[in-house]
Amino acid sequence: MASMATFIVKTPGTPHPIPNTFKPQLPSRLRFVSPLRLPSAATAGAVKGRNPTPRRPGVSCSLIEPDGGRLVDLVAPEGPDREALRREAAGYPQIKLSRIDLEWVHVLSEGWASPLGGFMREAEFLQTLHFNCLRLGDGSVVNMSVPIVLAIDDAQKRAIGDLRRVALVDAQDKPVAILSDIEIYKHNKEERIARTWGTTAPGLPYVEEAITKAGNWLIGGDLEVIERIKYNDGLDQYRLSPVELREEFSRRNADAVFAFQLRNPVHNGHALLMTDTRRRLLEMGYKNPVLLLHPLGGFTKADDVPLYWRMKQHEKVLEDGVLNPETTVVAIFPSPMHYAGPTEVQWHAKSRINAGANFYIVGRDPAGMSHPIEKRDLYDADHGKKVLSMAPGLERLNILPFKVAAYDTKQKKMAFFDPSRPQDFLFISGTKMRTLAKNRENPPDGFMCPGGWKVLVEYYDSKETQEGNKFREAVPA
Amino acid sequence: MASMATFIVKTPGTPHPIPNTFKPQLPSRLRFVSPLRLPSAATAGAVKGRNPTPRRPGVSCSLIEPDGGRLVDLVAPEGPDREALRREAAGYPQIKLSRIDLEWVHVLSEGWASPLGGFMREAEFLQTLHFNCLRLGDGSVVNMSVPIVLAIDDAQKRAIGDLRRVALVDAQDKPVAILSDIEIYKHNKEERIARTWGTTAPGLPYVEEAITKAGNWLIGGDLEVIERIKYNDGLDQYRLSPVELREEFSRRNADAVFAFQLRNPVHNGHALLMTDTRRRLLEMGYKNPVLLLHPLGGFTKADDVPLYWRMKQHEKVLEDGVLNPETTVVAIFPSPMHYAGPTEVQWHAKSRINAGANFYIVGRDPAGMSHPIEKRDLYDADHGKKVLSMAPGLERLNILPFKVAAYDTKQKKMAFFDPSRPQDFLFISGTKMRTLAKNRENPPDGFMCPGGWKVLVEYYDSKETQEGNKFREAVPA
Repeated sequence: MASMATFIVKTPGTPHPIPNTFKPQLPSRLRFVSPLRLPSAATAGAVKGRNPTPRRPGVSCSLIEPDGGRLVDLVAPEGPDREALRREAAGYPQIKLSRIDLEWVHVLSEGWASPLGGFMREAEFLQTLHFNCLRLGDGSVVNMSVPIVLAIDDAQKRAIGDLRRVALVDAQDKPVAILSDIEIYKHNKEERIARTWGTTAPGLPYVEEAITKAGNWLIGGDLEVIERIKYNDGLDQYRLSPVELREEFSRRNADAVFAFQLRNPVHNGHALLMTDTRRRLLEMGYKNPVLLLHPLGGFTKADDVPLYWRMKQHEKVLEDGVLNPETTVVAIFPSPMHYAGPTEVQWHAKSRINAGANFYIVGRDPAGMSHPIEKRDLYDADHGKKVLSMAPGLERLNILPFKVAAYDTKQKKMAFFDPSRPQDFLFISGTKMRTLAKNRENPPDGFMCPGGWKVLVEYYDSKETQEGNKFREAVPA
Repeated sequence: MASMATFIVKTPGTPHPIPNTFKPQLPSRLRFVSPLRLPSAATAGAVKGRNPTPRRPGVSCSLIEPDGGRLVDLVAPEGPDREALRREAAGYPQIKLSRIDLEWVHVLSEGWASPLGGFMREAEFLQTLHFNCLRLGDGSVVNMSVPIVLAIDDAQKRAIGDLRRVALVDAQDKPVAILSDIEIYKHNKEERIARTWGTTAPGLPYVEEAITKAGNWLIGGDLEVIERIKYNDGLDQYRLSPVELREEFSRRNADAVFAFQLRNPVHNGHALLMTDTRRRLLEMGYKNPVLLLHPLGGFTKADDVPLYWRMKQHEKVLEDGVLNPETTVVAIFPSPMHYAGPTEVQWHAKSRINAGANFYIVGRDPAGMSHPIEKRDLYDADHGKKVLSMAPGLERLNILPFKVAAYDTKQKKMAFFDPSRPQDFLFISGTKMRTLAKNRENPPDGFMCPGGWKVLVEYYDSKETQEGNKFREAVPA
């Protein structure tokens, strides 16, 4: 398939130097998503910055409506407006964005959190914490389960004073966005953490990375992003916006889109599930169900496999024919990971509605992890799918619970677990898989395609050769 | 006004001995609520046990509809059904109820939590924790912010085995209720606490009383209560059910009912607020707004003034003419107190809808307390009213934010705070008030009616004379 470079050229960015970082080069083969047309603000009813464009009916008529009826698009159009915004930003107090802050700017700018138009003000923050949803002006409700907030410290708050607008800048002080009609309110970290994670135990990855050290105030407002967020890490062609994804699904004449969120390498159990889902959708009468294989691209915890290697592994899975490229769109979901279980799985589902998915595959213990200080999983493995199926604002989404797949030692392949012969099945956990790959051992035949497994082994090898240089993920540029 | 003994006679109960308890006798004067008719299942559309009675329109047409359209009534009708239930209970595994469990049985039995028909099953528990609301079969949503759950331990779970029904018994092993079609699920205490209180800090009164020591399982199901819950503490005539309150409001031809939840003595600032609210409602065009002065009667923390003394103090407030008995209904709200701030204030409001109130006065920092281990309030003082105003399922309720009243040293009375002359106002906190009463000192003239203040001093005196005998609240009988 051809490269997608055509559409990423439109917003050229200066590659940011990433010091002390092992930045592998991606092989040119990793381009299996078809070329897309340039995204247009009107497609799928996008709302552009300050001037909402009326939804153009018909463009994506077969796709699910985005939350709030239209996709938010907060990136300034190329041209004089953008330059004016850049000059304007130079005159405002500056807030330096962390890597995760920038990832949220990315998420907001492309409308993944539609209809949210910027970092949350207090009313949105409180509704998110208490109700996992937002009430819109017309009384309707959209799901919103994780706070998308920007923290500032006392000195920044003082510097802003009574001003109504601030500039958001990257690590190199380059203006990224303007936040307008701002509201500053208290950042009660304990309450935020308790209500989002259901624990305040020390050691939650997102908390340690983005909350503990953050300031004691939150600043909300309307976001205008100067230009499209890019990472210049060789993966930008996979960072399709919800508008672009909707265009791709329309181009493929998809009459159902089923999303699979993941942050791990794809093994044959996942593949079986995705293939089986398509089969079931065809049985239900859909003519062309398309899979959105949608690895999470933002912050992940240290022992997760980095995005670059996951993308390389996913490529092999398609190359080896485990998944069918004709009915699969692989793209990167730019959100950072909370590891907040039943709370976060709602965000993962809601954002995929905005990208055009009307079916969502939910796994066992989605967005879960081990309890940071107790010997147990943080969340009940079934709560994710239960909470998701009852979540306000997600009524339109079809939830497809993950069938349990395990290694069938009789058939020598991944298969759906058969409770009539449990002794034949081997459960290979993520930890077990990583240990095998680290030790350059092979998993049982049929657990993962050989090309994909090789990538994993290669990753752990490369990690060792870094001799203490911590691998860092790419930062939004 | 006449005694309410007429209606409490219908469910005679054996008074429970309350050992080591100081049980003061209430003066006969404490009977300022008018006599009520016997409650009828059809009034306000009550739903009786297993046989829902269709709502009889017109009976309370001017009152707000209960949540879910009809009031739940889980008390078995007197007669053969009740006796059959009692015999049936003897054959089931028994779960002994704590004081707080019994208070929840009381709350559930009378429909304060309508349409909830028993202790929560997991689907209701999860919706409460994550969304503070429940979705009904018809897609509508009712508010439900605090978990109403019953914990059991491993041994009890084993004893129940695969049975579908259990008996709930009081401290004397007397059957109180039957729980049917039961579901047993995990009691993740940490998650429950974090999501309900927004903290897991040790020292939360309800947590220490009812959660820490409780079992690791929760049991939900449909509740059938054998007879009306009584306390035999001389206050049962104030324990009006939602049905009885609705009847009383109808009898008084109330065209608006405004509820005031409290767990403290009434000072003249409260009284000013209530009087002023009535004035505002009259200005809005209501002809006969009635105040529901509704002290919380269940579990409270050790340093709160006990219910008996609060009721005695409230009586004096009406006796001294601070509030008008003609437009005031004083009754006891049987719920235990969580001290869960913005989460709990929703419960306080929602339950009052079920009792017929369409206006709810919300104070500064409702259901709040000091952080148990940090030197600050646990909740932002404004979050209660903000969360309440946005809460799903409470759209029908008119929220009246508390105007700040303080002691005006110029006028020598409680008055609404005037920001143009802050130096004239004295804020007398609950702690300050308690310290004054403990030391038998007088507050400034006009802070509280003299009769009411005398009750407080008397309470602290009686506390001292107990010589280490801890005062205990009455237990549901």
